[in-house]
Amino acid sequence: MKKPLEGVRVLDLTRVLAGPFCTMMLLDLGAEVIKVENPNGGDDSRAFGPFQNGKSAYFLTINRGKKSISLNLKTQEGKQLLRDLVKHCDVICENYTPGTMEKLGLGYDDLRVINPRIIYAAMSGFGHSGPDMNKPAYDILVQAMGGVMSITGWPGSAPTRVGVSMGDISAALFGAIGLTTALYQREKTGVGQKVDVAMLDCQAAMLENALARFQVEKAVPQPLGSRHPSISPFQAYKASDGYLIIAAGNDNLWSKLCTALNCTPLISDARFQTNAQRTSNVIEVETELNAILDQKTVAQWMDILNNAGVPCSPVNGMDAVLQHPQLNARNMFVDVTDPAFPGMKVPGNPIKMSCLAEELSRDKAPDIGEHNSEVLRDLLGMSNAQIAALKALGVM
Amino acid sequence: MKKPLEGVRVLDLTRVLAGPFCTMMLLDLGAEVIKVENPNGGDDSRAFGPFQNGKSAYFLTINRGKKSISLNLKTQEGKQLLRDLVKHCDVICENYTPGTMEKLGLGYDDLRVINPRIIYAAMSGFGHSGPDMNKPAYDILVQAMGGVMSITGWPGSAPTRVGVSMGDISAALFGAIGLTTALYQREKTGVGQKVDVAMLDCQAAMLENALARFQVEKAVPQPLGSRHPSISPFQAYKASDGYLIIAAGNDNLWSKLCTALNCTPLISDARFQTNAQRTSNVIEVETELNAILDQKTVAQWMDILNNAGVPCSPVNGMDAVLQHPQLNARNMFVDVTDPAFPGMKVPGNPIKMSCLAEELSRDKAPDIGEHNSEVLRDLLGMSNAQIAALKALGVM
Repeated sequence: MKKPLEGVRVLDLTRVLAGPFCTMMLLDLGAEVIKVENPNGGDDSRAFGPFQNGKSAYFLTINRGKKSISLNLKTQEGKQLLRDLVKHCDVICENYTPGTMEKLGLGYDDLRVINPRIIYAAMSGFGHSGPDMNKPAYDILVQAMGGVMSITGWPGSAPTRVGVSMGDISAALFGAIGLTTALYQREKTGVGQKVDVAMLDCQAAMLENALARFQVEKAVPQPLGSRHPSISPFQAYKASDGYLIIAAGNDNLWSKLCTALNCTPLISDARFQTNAQRTSNVIEVETELNAILDQKTVAQWMDILNNAGVPCSPVNGMDAVLQHPQLNARNMFVDVTDPAFPGMKVPGNPIKMSCLAEELSRDKAPDIGEHNSEVLRDLLGMSNAQIAALKALGVM
Repeated sequence: MKKPLEGVRVLDLTRVLAGPFCTMMLLDLGAEVIKVENPNGGDDSRAFGPFQNGKSAYFLTINRGKKSISLNLKTQEGKQLLRDLVKHCDVICENYTPGTMEKLGLGYDDLRVINPRIIYAAMSGFGHSGPDMNKPAYDILVQAMGGVMSITGWPGSAPTRVGVSMGDISAALFGAIGLTTALYQREKTGVGQKVDVAMLDCQAAMLENALARFQVEKAVPQPLGSRHPSISPFQAYKASDGYLIIAAGNDNLWSKLCTALNCTPLISDARFQTNAQRTSNVIEVETELNAILDQKTVAQWMDILNNAGVPCSPVNGMDAVLQHPQLNARNMFVDVTDPAFPGMKVPGNPIKMSCLAEELSRDKAPDIGEHNSEVLRDLLGMSNAQIAALKALGVM
């Protein structure tokens, strides 16, 4: 069985997170990913902790299984090699500040002449158009600028960053949709195209009902802690030894919850009969439930609520996540064959496809230029002597 | 110019968020989306606020531009109509609890017999395998269960939900990648496949360095407020009238920042010379910067820092987001032609492709069954009398 993207070759000039996360997904779907790194240090994230045996676990997580060639794109020879490689690739991916590739003579308009079938995907902070296009962006900036931070956290508290880099990762995901769609369209038309995804745009695309609420209600939505703006109970509550989440927004689940908590009078309490009433009186719901939940531990309540069919969860830390039976049954943590990281698990592929066999391990992340000889020999027919000469010149 | 997914017809059985968000993206890339709704009330989110002129703005935001047919899938005639429609579609999308479609006799194994080219995408809470597969899930549950909530919020505070439904939306994004990849593979093989995406899996896939930090450092990562675990300054700071974000993680930006704030002695301060030192002494960095930033307003500092080339942002609420010049230059808020919502803006398409012209408006969201006649006539050749008979029988 062939993998869905088998035969798709990706030339990957990306660094740190949005770009590398995107090409990692393409790799998991079967593409060959050739990372192009500067010979002096390579991808910046090789210098990001945590480290083990001198290697970055951060870099490993996002780059396992890729190939690496080193190329100094400031040299004429380096640029020429990149152009030669583009002829043999389907996709080129970059996440430089817009204008960088054009200045190198390697923008989409340069490369499409060399290979009209090339799909050029750019993931940048602000995109390749508009007044801010040339500014750099970082995850926390787009979380703040795009509105997500204004509705995350606690009323009156300092702003709260989403603990994962959703600014970068959402751009990686939207970028991958654009890339795979461009591959599909190329099957129809025979030509490639440019895909331009901005981290800031992606934040705005994910605001869902907050944007509508503001326009209809004319009040700027505020952060709500763990609460949902229009569903209750649907938040964190406090047991005797910590917090648990209960999501029981409809009347049937509210009834099941009250029965399980042995507080059936609340079912017919005039303040709590509908979701709308419970949401209007959300503080009273919280007070009533916390008073009961305080009598047992999170683990005890999880047993009781699960048996009663009430959706609930502890707030799992990384230790519990790695042990989670459902995530492990779905192969969401896979081994990585890197001697520097014995026993290390990395996230697996969440896109399960019936034409894609599950793989229970990933190859290690490459060293800088580890695949120079293989790639230049196989794709460009170069000899070891030619490759050694390029290395001596500082091109690789 | 044809749109990338022009000619792709999607039969959309999804409700509320993850599924409808996925098919909305396919629509923006050119697919025809036919929403299949139960005749009694339709998509649950039609009942979710905010409302305007009796219609849900929540539903509008995610379903603009789709068609709707009403179909009672509990009737034999309704099931048969769905099977007939599947013959004329490329993609079927559903987000029921696993097992629901199979019980109706409409699971992938039933439908592939009718149309081997069909691509069947399921987005569920826990996926179509594993011990928890039959449980329902909600956004806040997978945020808590999958670990994101454990690293979002403030040390010692109650758990904090990410203010957008990233549990649903990330499943929509990974699902769309799977769908478009399956469309590409079908061009090679001629056959469809099943795509199975779980909200919980997607949360685990997005944990990036937290999972690696836990395994290397053996300590469970904790929430950090607005801070980044390994970059400083990279957080919210307090000006005289509110908060602003400064992202100046490398030494060059640190130097620019200190110059702009007129505190150049901090550049060579032994506690702050490298990013590693600044991260170790992050509280002192915060104390020093807050003391200076407290002397001017957010707007004043934005001018100063932007002029100095220091990446910064206010924490934009929905009002500022909707007015943002860069987002508007990128057409990220588009009009929707629904008389119930005059002047309403909905998020546009963040996937900019050179073979996809920008569209500055979207059609309205459909009423339940608004396209019954059109779809049944055009795809199945049915007469108005036949359609009226089905309606009289309660099938539509």
